[in-house]
Amino acid sequence: MAATDARTELRVYLMVEDLQQQFAAYLGTPTRARGYPPYAGDHALIIEVAPALAIERVIDLALRAAPSVEPGILFVERQFGVLELHASSLEDVVAAGQAVLDGTGSSASDQLRPRVLYHDIIESITDQHAVILNRNRSGSMIMPGQSLLVYEMAPALFAAVAANEAERAAPGITMVDVQFIGAAGRLYLSGTTEDVEVARDRITKVLESIEGREHG
Amino acid sequence: MAATDARTELRVYLMVEDLQQQFAAYLGTPTRARGYPPYAGDHALIIEVAPALAIERVIDLALRAAPSVEPGILFVERQFGVLELHASSLEDVVAAGQAVLDGTGSSASDQLRPRVLYHDIIESITDQHAVILNRNRSGSMIMPGQSLLVYEMAPALFAAVAANEAERAAPGITMVDVQFIGAAGRLYLSGTTEDVEVARDRITKVLESIEGREHG
Amino acid sequence: MAATDARTELRVYLMVEDLQQQFAAYLGTPTRARGYPPYAGDHALIIEVAPALAIERVIDLALRAAPSVEPGILFVERQFGVLELHASSLEDVVAAGQAVLDGTGSSASDQLRPRVLYHDIIESITDQHAVILNRNRSGSMIMPGQSLLVYEMAPALFAAVAANEAERAAPGITMVDVQFIGAAGRLYLSGTTEDVEVARDRITKVLESIEGREHG
Amino acid sequence: MAATDARTELRVYLMVEDLQQQFAAYLGTPTRARGYPPYAGDHALIIEVAPALAIERVIDLALRAAPSVEPGILFVERQFGVLELHASSLEDVVAAGQAVLDGTGSSASDQLRPRVLYHDIIESITDQHAVILNRNRSGSMIMPGQSLLVYEMAPALFAAVAANEAERAAPGITMVDVQFIGAAGRLYLSGTTEDVEVARDRITKVLESIEGREHG
Amino acid sequence: MAATDARTELRVYLMVEDLQQQFAAYLGTPTRARGYPPYAGDHALIIEVAPALAIERVIDLALRAAPSVEPGILFVERQFGVLELHASSLEDVVAAGQAVLDGTGSSASDQLRPRVLYHDIIESITDQHAVILNRNRSGSMIMPGQSLLVYEMAPALFAAVAANEAERAAPGITMVDVQFIGAAGRLYLSGTTEDVEVARDRITKVLESIEGREHG
Amino acid sequence: MAATDARTELRVYLMVEDLQQQFAAYLGTPTRARGYPPYAGDHALIIEVAPALAIERVIDLALRAAPSVEPGILFVERQFGVLELHASSLEDVVAAGQAVLDGTGSSASDQLRPRVLYHDIIESITDQHAVILNRNRSGSMIMPGQSLLVYEMAPALFAAVAANEAERAAPGITMVDVQFIGAAGRLYLSGTTEDVEVARDRITKVLESIEGREHG
Repeated sequence: MAATDARTELRVYLMVEDLQQQFAAYLGTPTRARGYPPYAGDHALIIEVAPALAIERVIDLALRAAPSVEPGILFVERQFGVLELHASSLEDVVAAGQAVLDGTGSSASDQLRPRVLYHDIIESITDQHAVILNRNRSGSMIMPGQSLLVYEMAPALFAAVAANEAERAAPGITMVDVQFIGAAGRLYLSGTTEDVEVARDRITKVLESIEGREHG
Repeated sequence: MAATDARTELRVYLMVEDLQQQFAAYLGTPTRARGYPPYAGDHALIIEVAPALAIERVIDLALRAAPSVEPGILFVERQFGVLELHASSLEDVVAAGQAVLDGTGSSASDQLRPRVLYHDIIESITDQHAVILNRNRSGSMIMPGQSLLVYEMAPALFAAVAANEAERAAPGITMVDVQFIGAAGRLYLSGTTEDVEVARDRITKVLESIEGREHG
Repeated sequence: MAATDARTELRVYLMVEDLQQQFAAYLGTPTRARGYPPYAGDHALIIEVAPALAIERVIDLALRAAPSVEPGILFVERQFGVLELHASSLEDVVAAGQAVLDGTGSSASDQLRPRVLYHDIIESITDQHAVILNRNRSGSMIMPGQSLLVYEMAPALFAAVAANEAERAAPGITMVDVQFIGAAGRLYLSGTTEDVEVARDRITKVLESIEGREHG
Repeated sequence: MAATDARTELRVYLMVEDLQQQFAAYLGTPTRARGYPPYAGDHALIIEVAPALAIERVIDLALRAAPSVEPGILFVERQFGVLELHASSLEDVVAAGQAVLDGTGSSASDQLRPRVLYHDIIESITDQHAVILNRNRSGSMIMPGQSLLVYEMAPALFAAVAANEAERAAPGITMVDVQFIGAAGRLYLSGTTEDVEVARDRITKVLESIEGREHG
Repeated sequence: MAATDARTELRVYLMVEDLQQQFAAYLGTPTRARGYPPYAGDHALIIEVAPALAIERVIDLALRAAPSVEPGILFVERQFGVLELHASSLEDVVAAGQAVLDGTGSSASDQLRPRVLYHDIIESITDQHAVILNRNRSGSMIMPGQSLLVYEMAPALFAAVAANEAERAAPGITMVDVQFIGAAGRLYLSGTTEDVEVARDRITKVLESIEGREHG
Repeated sequence: MAATDARTELRVYLMVEDLQQQFAAYLGTPTRARGYPPYAGDHALIIEVAPALAIERVIDLALRAAPSVEPGILFVERQFGVLELHASSLEDVVAAGQAVLDGTGSSASDQLRPRVLYHDIIESITDQHAVILNRNRSGSMIMPGQSLLVYEMAPALFAAVAANEAERAAPGITMVDVQFIGAAGRLYLSGTTEDVEVARDRITKVLESIEGREHG
């Protein structure tokens, strides 16, 4: 359907079922995500493509197939186009996703395999570190003395599923920041050392379980 | 020492002892507060004056008298000048404050008496309300189902002491937003109904206990 | 239901039926309006209150009575609280509004009578004027040579109904800017002289027909 | 010519001849001034009116009478409309101004008499004070150890002529900030004590020499 | 003339004659383009270079050779330096361009050949898609039901000539967004399907006709 | 100590001794540098790493080893993590740095060798060029007629030491802009031709004297 030979490359195509409370709230706050924020319990579909503008066809395919689905994020960044869609009905989100695959001639397995770039747990964060983290966060505040999990991966949008699954595994964590648009995705989660370890291990497991193409 | 006949009107002059953890963290985050963020346990002095530019003399008097004191907020808004200073030594903050009183020929009782404009507790906040609150907050995220305390007062800067005392009385609350620069001060605190009631009652008591001039 | 003696003063309470296409689109764009944008054909309710924080009780009353209603704008400005709600069902919006009136002990006639502060039509706008207007607009671009209607009124939120009715009367106009939050409401509409005259006359008529209290 | 009975109240109407180098550069930088920046040596006309939107008629009158004149600032703030126009030809600026007076049925003496709200010189600014001033400036940086002149007046736009005349009298000063849009105008000028004293005295003299109506 | 061995690589060097009305207006609005906006009918020269800072020598060469030429955009982005200059006299713009070529030892054919990355026409845009597009545009609003042309190319600055030629070919289109700074240029044009097809075909033809080096 | 195999790559690791007055002031102003601004005479340590999030472990290592050290900048950009730390005691900064090297298993010579991408001196800057430079600067204003040194290098953070050494060599220069976060570092320094030549030569010499790995 695209009027150019340039094929739409699927970088991320993933269902994020049953949005958790903090992550759903977080999706309403980033200034670069200017659509309809979801509620906890909604189901989301996240898609990242190249070239970036191909995301405009992707959203059209989805909204026509499932008009009840609402766009939470549509962003055209330096290199990639990013979309988050959600609905209370899982079936509707699945239908929207299928229409995207059909319309772009792709299959879900065309996505890239997530690559872990870095992760680390910093225990008992210092006062000064907390101050400067709080100056840049867009989620909730981190408190000195908490442990901090940082996790970096590519493509960036996988940070969305990572955040949601981390909260499901460790609901007591605080979501300090989730950056899922750009060259790499980055998570900042704080809490007890035990909670952030649970979160880290779940993220690693979830990312390992995602099938996809290798990338350079 | 001021080179004009225009007298500096003291609107707020108040010690905020023993900064609580969340409120200290919050002071580091507002984009309109571009100084040195305090740590929990520091002591603060808050001052609001008219005309607005008189705050530049006020900060100079304070910093010369007590060089260890650090400015957290210096803001010249539409009508008023606002200053927050802090240090780990209470003595130093007291000395800074005394120098301001001496240098402007004022006494602490020249400040305005706080006036309560509004307060309310909204129980079990709805999903949509939480979304739109989270889009405007600069503190931590509110979750649907929590109770929300809103509290409005004048002059605006009294919201700083109100926030700190509310957290001391109910450490389990979440500090969603504290607006202490402008025509009125506003607090958004969330948590259990019991916690936000404790917070509200402490704020009311604290504000009632502050002496000062009546205003129109 | 408010826990303080401070009574909620209703400044604006008005239904805006059948949102027109450009105005609905405009409601999605202002950075200070961070909720759920409406679609053309939806019905809206606009409410402005003092003290500003009372708007948090107002939105809660509305959303509980009519959960299908979505908040488009919730803003707490220097002096006033502002709310825009909408739904595809007029009945739902009416129910939300009635709940607000009941819950605050108000009646629709408690609102202020709109006051026209200024209006003017500038024909065949110059090149330089168009440039500087386009630098500050948040709606569509004005072109040199078009006629420009400017219209200023208080309270500010009446600019919302004025914009919608102007577009209904003259669908060919371009909505350059609509400012409905602040001390005064302001409209910038461009088009043929004939179209902006139709728009101006409709606005004047609509504002004259709104009942309410006089203000100083 | 205005289509409403609301008369345009002239608050500021003043020629600023021979723009000095720093002040001309400063006019290009504020984010709220989005027109054509002037060059040193240009001549400017500054106008502030109420109601705010009447400034759109004012600019149209000026640009039609003298098309070579360029708008540097056109801003509609909370209460007032503000305009700065300039050209290399003084004659053209005078013609633009005369057209504004004729078209609004005003005379230059209708403007308000400037009122000094505050001024002060702070000698040998401390390190911490310099840091926090530099975080909020939009002009050049102030260095610790310099003297700082602050000067506040109403209406705000008189700060433009004050800044230009201060630089003419003391070209060695640094223009740290000039705020001429809002409820009050504010200047921050730094340099040697001698230079900022010269600047202060010239500002006082210039403001005293401006004729106008008294205001409350 | 450059004092380093690093040669200035010319990426884009192109005349954009006879600026169309909407595109000229658009050039005044982007927040990243902070110079002198052009008028319709002016002629522009667009230049993109690497390394980015070499653009400062480029603008100096141009302004000295043709002082009547005004800079509309000067931006130093992550990798490239971008310049737009314009004047009412085509001769002056040509002279400015020639001075740039001479001073950098380049010829116009050194530029890169435009590469089309993607284009697509989405017919009858949905309500939700229009909302989220309007939240991110910096041009005029798109209306639901219109057709949308998206067009992506590299280097980014070619989007400027594409936008201007598209408007010349289909003056009835609405210019929703034109992004010409970054890694890729992107256009969003809306209107009838027929109009956006005319726009697309003209853009393709214009880009194909531009000579230049191949790139990787 | 990092919990992932991804090794922290040290891109920049450098002491910047005895911060000069303007550069110290500049460090307080960038909006992307949200920590504790240094004073003139402090000593700084600058570190850039990949992957970006590894900077969070780096700051923790430093602050634990030397709690008196304050973070001025902590920024996680598209590809790299950037940190600036400072203290009045050189010994403390050295201790912080050593802890970073030990904790990451690196040595100072692991950093990249600076690469000069471009430099140039533009004499007697034109009026229009000055206007557009002043619209984008975050330091002090440049005046028409001054000479401008532009200097571009990679990695970006080396621009910090370059700015400080340039000011030490030529204290009369004006620091217009220093961009040290991103893909490349960029300096804009203005003054007499003689002063900017001195600055340029010192920067070249300083960069040449820095040892490190070659990069592609």
